[in-house]
Amino acid sequence: MAGYKEAGVDIDAGNKSEDIISQAVKRTYNREVVSGVGSFGAVYSLAKVKKMKNPLLVSTVDGVGTKLKIAAALNRWDTIGVDIVNHCSNDILAMGATPLYFLDYLASAKMSPEVVGRIVKGMADACIAVGCPLIGGETAEMPGVYYSNEYDVVGCMVGVVDRKYFLDGSKIRKGDAIIALASNGLHTNGYSLARYVLFEKAGFKETDIVPEFGHSWGDELLAVHKSYSANVLALMKSVNVKGIAHITGGGIPENVPRIMPKGLSAGIDYSASEVPEVFKLIQRMGHISDQEMFRTFNMGVGLVLVVSKQDVKRSVDFLSKRGETAWVIGRVVKG
Amino acid sequence: MAGYKEAGVDIDAGNKSEDIISQAVKRTYNREVVSGVGSFGAVYSLAKVKKMKNPLLVSTVDGVGTKLKIAAALNRWDTIGVDIVNHCSNDILAMGATPLYFLDYLASAKMSPEVVGRIVKGMADACIAVGCPLIGGETAEMPGVYYSNEYDVVGCMVGVVDRKYFLDGSKIRKGDAIIALASNGLHTNGYSLARYVLFEKAGFKETDIVPEFGHSWGDELLAVHKSYSANVLALMKSVNVKGIAHITGGGIPENVPRIMPKGLSAGIDYSASEVPEVFKLIQRMGHISDQEMFRTFNMGVGLVLVVSKQDVKRSVDFLSKRGETAWVIGRVVKG
Repeated sequence: MAGYKEAGVDIDAGNKSEDIISQAVKRTYNREVVSGVGSFGAVYSLAKVKKMKNPLLVSTVDGVGTKLKIAAALNRWDTIGVDIVNHCSNDILAMGATPLYFLDYLASAKMSPEVVGRIVKGMADACIAVGCPLIGGETAEMPGVYYSNEYDVVGCMVGVVDRKYFLDGSKIRKGDAIIALASNGLHTNGYSLARYVLFEKAGFKETDIVPEFGHSWGDELLAVHKSYSANVLALMKSVNVKGIAHITGGGIPENVPRIMPKGLSAGIDYSASEVPEVFKLIQRMGHISDQEMFRTFNMGVGLVLVVSKQDVKRSVDFLSKRGETAWVIGRVVKG
Repeated sequence: MAGYKEAGVDIDAGNKSEDIISQAVKRTYNREVVSGVGSFGAVYSLAKVKKMKNPLLVSTVDGVGTKLKIAAALNRWDTIGVDIVNHCSNDILAMGATPLYFLDYLASAKMSPEVVGRIVKGMADACIAVGCPLIGGETAEMPGVYYSNEYDVVGCMVGVVDRKYFLDGSKIRKGDAIIALASNGLHTNGYSLARYVLFEKAGFKETDIVPEFGHSWGDELLAVHKSYSANVLALMKSVNVKGIAHITGGGIPENVPRIMPKGLSAGIDYSASEVPEVFKLIQRMGHISDQEMFRTFNMGVGLVLVVSKQDVKRSVDFLSKRGETAWVIGRVVKG
């Protein structure tokens, strides 16, 4: 007699994971959550959003890429959930939006309730930090699609912005300043190349201590993707932020042009921000060109802001006081 | 000199996939789409939604499970995108919601632009059919997480319902009728067990023709997940539908109780609906108990509705005229 367990799917373990998820996420709920995890669809009230004059929903779906391989190699799942929530919060921030709610999708060959619990706890903590409830999600067991002990972690965040604050590039003018905010390591991009250089070519292990850091490669590479949401939304209350680029795959060279209006482009001085040691080590060991490095990694810059020249000092001071490291890395030019 | 290509990630192929996606999805856009695929966040206007008295957003994230293994085995990717969109539309329909927009996440060891194009075309077609634009998504290459030539396909749908039409079970009363709508095969559940029984134990191949069907196992198992959204939303304009359950993993025995209010339960006559041949064949070959079959598969029922006794005839007639097969399979009882 065949059953789902024999075929590699454990419905009871799935239900156990669901219980763990349910407990972790309920503490993220706010008054707007009408019906969360466990319903066919997660239900969120627009009562507050309705008060905006012209509300726009801003949505993103994303994963954390092969940073997951580092987590899997070390069986350390506490921070991957933080990574995906923060990543999503930065994506919607780039349109000027405040987070409303988050949903997740976790898949693996076989779900370990413990791993799921750790990932979801990270998500729930990060959701509380960026101020949005985790209202729904799905777990899927797919033996034969995923390698054993590997997980994919996908997040979907929905936020809102009133149209007059919506960032579509139209407010950007020639001469505006480009401010870079420091990243916290690789964030969630460039891991396939980093792993190839460090672990395949150079022969390091995730657990090897790196003298330059005083901790392991795994510790360095699992540093969490930073959320700029709270600090930049706060800045936007007093400064007219005209554009925001989240520095993800493609780095500064591919992400900053995405927010420039027709006829204008970003004049970037790549030497104006500090490149953290981890990127230098990867570059040296992999014999990688500057161009490839900047196209693959964030190189120390997690977010880029565009403000008027006269708002530069106030912006940098405001952000520095809140713990951000900010550099002016260029200005908006013609062409 | 190392590059991303050498490490197994092809940014240019990724960009090519993005072009294909961009073309396919643009024809799904409506006036509410302010900024779609290609932005950091997809932007959707709530101008129309704002006119509702008490709008609730209903969101779901889901995958298609190991149905993907059948698509991969046959390298037939036209319908998987339809499956995920329709699945999501039924999930939010269970809360009474009309689709607003859809986002997707596609991941693989290595993206084939052709495969991505086929999957996204399926999504776009299905999005047009259920009346919601495909406004954003992400593709991820993760060698070492996914087996070669395998894909995961994840969808996120956001819909809306005015609170007075919201289905939270509170309108369900003792004596109400339970109507079942016919499914179109396995939809997206039970594939791990089906594959185990058919391909591992019984030794069939996906391409083997099944005399009972006159087509192959692959054809039968790739039959698309049906969307009930349009027909049931139309029904709800004239009939007070009190509850809807989408029959997914866990089957009728686990999904119908999810919508019952405290103190009431569903009295189901499992012999009242027709069990399609495909389930009978799997059961016979796998020596699977009735209980396990009904807990794993939809057994021919894709959606369950709860209506008042006096609305049964009108509901069944309305749905039949629109091409649905409907059976009365039980009633709401105490306890």
